[in-house]
Amino acid sequence: MSVEPRLFQGTRDILPEELLPRQELVAALVRTFESFGFAPLETPAMEFLDILLGKYGEEGEKLIYKLAYKGGEVLALRYDLTVPLSRVVAMNPELPLPFKRYQIQPVWRADRPQPAQGRYREFIQCDVDTIGTASMAADAENVAVVAAGIRALGLTDFVVRVNHRKLLRGMVEAAGLAAEQEAGVLRSVDKLDKIGTEGVQKELTASGISDDAQRALLTLMDLDGAPLEVLRKVEERVGASPAAAQGIRELREMMEYADALGVDATRVQVDLHLTRGLDYYTGPVYEVALTSIEKFGSLGGGGRYDDLMSIYGGAPVPATGVSIGLSRVLSALLKLGKLSVRSSPAQAMILRFADAAPSDGLRLCTELRNAGVACELYYDADRLKKQFLLAERKGIPCAVIVGANEIAAGTATLKHLPTGVQETLPRAALAARIHSLTQR
Amino acid sequence: MSVEPRLFQGTRDILPEELLPRQELVAALVRTFESFGFAPLETPAMEFLDILLGKYGEEGEKLIYKLAYKGGEVLALRYDLTVPLSRVVAMNPELPLPFKRYQIQPVWRADRPQPAQGRYREFIQCDVDTIGTASMAADAENVAVVAAGIRALGLTDFVVRVNHRKLLRGMVEAAGLAAEQEAGVLRSVDKLDKIGTEGVQKELTASGISDDAQRALLTLMDLDGAPLEVLRKVEERVGASPAAAQGIRELREMMEYADALGVDATRVQVDLHLTRGLDYYTGPVYEVALTSIEKFGSLGGGGRYDDLMSIYGGAPVPATGVSIGLSRVLSALLKLGKLSVRSSPAQAMILRFADAAPSDGLRLCTELRNAGVACELYYDADRLKKQFLLAERKGIPCAVIVGANEIAAGTATLKHLPTGVQETLPRAALAARIHSLTQR
Repeated sequence: MSVEPRLFQGTRDILPEELLPRQELVAALVRTFESFGFAPLETPAMEFLDILLGKYGEEGEKLIYKLAYKGGEVLALRYDLTVPLSRVVAMNPELPLPFKRYQIQPVWRADRPQPAQGRYREFIQCDVDTIGTASMAADAENVAVVAAGIRALGLTDFVVRVNHRKLLRGMVEAAGLAAEQEAGVLRSVDKLDKIGTEGVQKELTASGISDDAQRALLTLMDLDGAPLEVLRKVEERVGASPAAAQGIRELREMMEYADALGVDATRVQVDLHLTRGLDYYTGPVYEVALTSIEKFGSLGGGGRYDDLMSIYGGAPVPATGVSIGLSRVLSALLKLGKLSVRSSPAQAMILRFADAAPSDGLRLCTELRNAGVACELYYDADRLKKQFLLAERKGIPCAVIVGANEIAAGTATLKHLPTGVQETLPRAALAARIHSLTQR
Repeated sequence: MSVEPRLFQGTRDILPEELLPRQELVAALVRTFESFGFAPLETPAMEFLDILLGKYGEEGEKLIYKLAYKGGEVLALRYDLTVPLSRVVAMNPELPLPFKRYQIQPVWRADRPQPAQGRYREFIQCDVDTIGTASMAADAENVAVVAAGIRALGLTDFVVRVNHRKLLRGMVEAAGLAAEQEAGVLRSVDKLDKIGTEGVQKELTASGISDDAQRALLTLMDLDGAPLEVLRKVEERVGASPAAAQGIRELREMMEYADALGVDATRVQVDLHLTRGLDYYTGPVYEVALTSIEKFGSLGGGGRYDDLMSIYGGAPVPATGVSIGLSRVLSALLKLGKLSVRSSPAQAMILRFADAAPSDGLRLCTELRNAGVACELYYDADRLKKQFLLAERKGIPCAVIVGANEIAAGTATLKHLPTGVQETLPRAALAARIHSLTQR
């Protein structure tokens, strides 16, 4: 009885070719996050189901993976990194606030997988959050850290769009809409990029929003220009609303801080359409979009959510966070030809003539490893041609060939496989030459 | 209705204080693994249940976490990294062999948690395997990579114990035991460290092994001395058995290769008691034990398993692997006082006198970050004493204080919190001074 080896639909293995560059990206993100003082956190994959219920909305809740546990469904797999964070904050009252944390872990969603669009049932989230301060400086740092992170990942052509939930409330009010219509209207407007103005209008009409109200709202949202100019224009129209006034004031403050943080002002846009779908945002919202690929969509984003951290009781704790879409960034780098794909971490493979023993090869490996060269030995006694073929198939750039003569002479032959250039070098010079040939 | 925030028994959050050093250890392991040419692999947390069944023995199978999926239990959580590896090898026939991979991922087991002993239901495994070669050079590299990995993690006092499953078979035969008794006998002998000789004898007696056979086996296993001496002694006694002769020959070859790989010969012991419990080993087995803490037990180990990779059908593929117990190493480093605990990655916190604006602090942060200093701003306008307190509670070693005077003069005051030493420096000199104060 043999079981067919197969994967659950919507999951996948990450083979070396993809994982090697991904690990470099994650390391670059970690360095960026830590340079801003964010500290790492990991939470368990398994949470009690009731910890997750009631947090993600009706649609989201259906996508939670449940574990069969002693008959009942009391456990679930991590669905995002924000709810576990609020649990950690509630359970660790000794944590000094503000608590600045980053978290890079997989989450699981029982969604319809769309591998062609890079949508899987298991995927990595990279979140950065600051819990315990209402300062707009924390929001500006979110914008700065996401911009620095995306730059560290190798993408340079992007804009940061910003808006504010309280300003959105002011605009919704000014358009003559009721408070209880706000969430639905914002969810529709959030789809603007996907379904276009007509699509949004259709949805709004279906929700019973009058043509006049739609026109009023979209006219306000269409205000454009340089960031401070947009804020001035919208202030003239809705500044009498206390909510809008607070939103405008906070956005001005946030942009001043972003400037102090060295965020390129030409990359920041006030986009009054931006809502960031989720219901829980209460303050500034931001989103980073790639400009070098048409309609590529968001690379990451976030905002302030001052009410979410108190879901386990206790006093409200102000909080703000941002998230980078690692798989989106990987996909952008791939499309732009900026991802250096390689299937082995080895810079060199040691090949042996028939008169060299495995020990001779291993001694050379050890010399090279001690000099910082990642390398491996061709283990078995095969023809040299077969040995070269393996190095090529593994994508290892250098082959080092040794035989009894080379060993006696203290030399080795080095072949750079991408160019075919071959040279004989003293062993002591080998590591430096390999490093110079394989510098990334 | 408020849900009590709590964790599932046997799982835990990894807070920054523990995760910061752990991430450094993992990075050191990754560098070591890659220097040997091992490439990274990740597999999904969720596998079809039938992929995992029939691989871990009756006891092991009970510990698999199952997912409730459309009514039936067809999915399970990753239980180890070896079975997923064999699935990957079966599903990717284009992978060039030998395939050298490392994998560092959590696994889940529905075991009785013993947090005091560091046993959890979710824990990280760090495995290195070479698939597709029967060469003893691959086994020697396992010994070398685990020794180099443990050294890279900061532990220097350890021994590598080696033995061979075929030599064990020869000893079992020589003691007059039947082939079908071998697995049970070896599982009992494996408990020697835990339950002592008397305990093992009791178990063997209970399994119906005669006193004579027990004495004969344990006398053989007690042979000691330098590695080659032990092999010579045991060869004299059981060398006539073809299995034993092959085992002895392969161990000699493996030790020759380990020597070529620079493994310190004084650290290698042939321990004829070593069995490495699991049934699937077929060749050399090895285990690394810490010597600087009495009875600390294994830091890692592995062996050759030439039959396991063909569980999904197809021709047998020789394979060998080794695993490092990351949480064991962490616990050893902690006991030896070698783990530098810190709860923030930040080297400095910027504090503000009342006359400095948040933007002033953020500009200084940006200067320091651009000079490679990880730092954060105290966001809110609090008394300086409260600001210092937060830096201390977060374990941030340096505080940089700025006010209007310092900004005008182009200086800042730097206080090294562990020593209390305070100095005023030009801003341009600040980063270098912080680096020198916080070098790890």
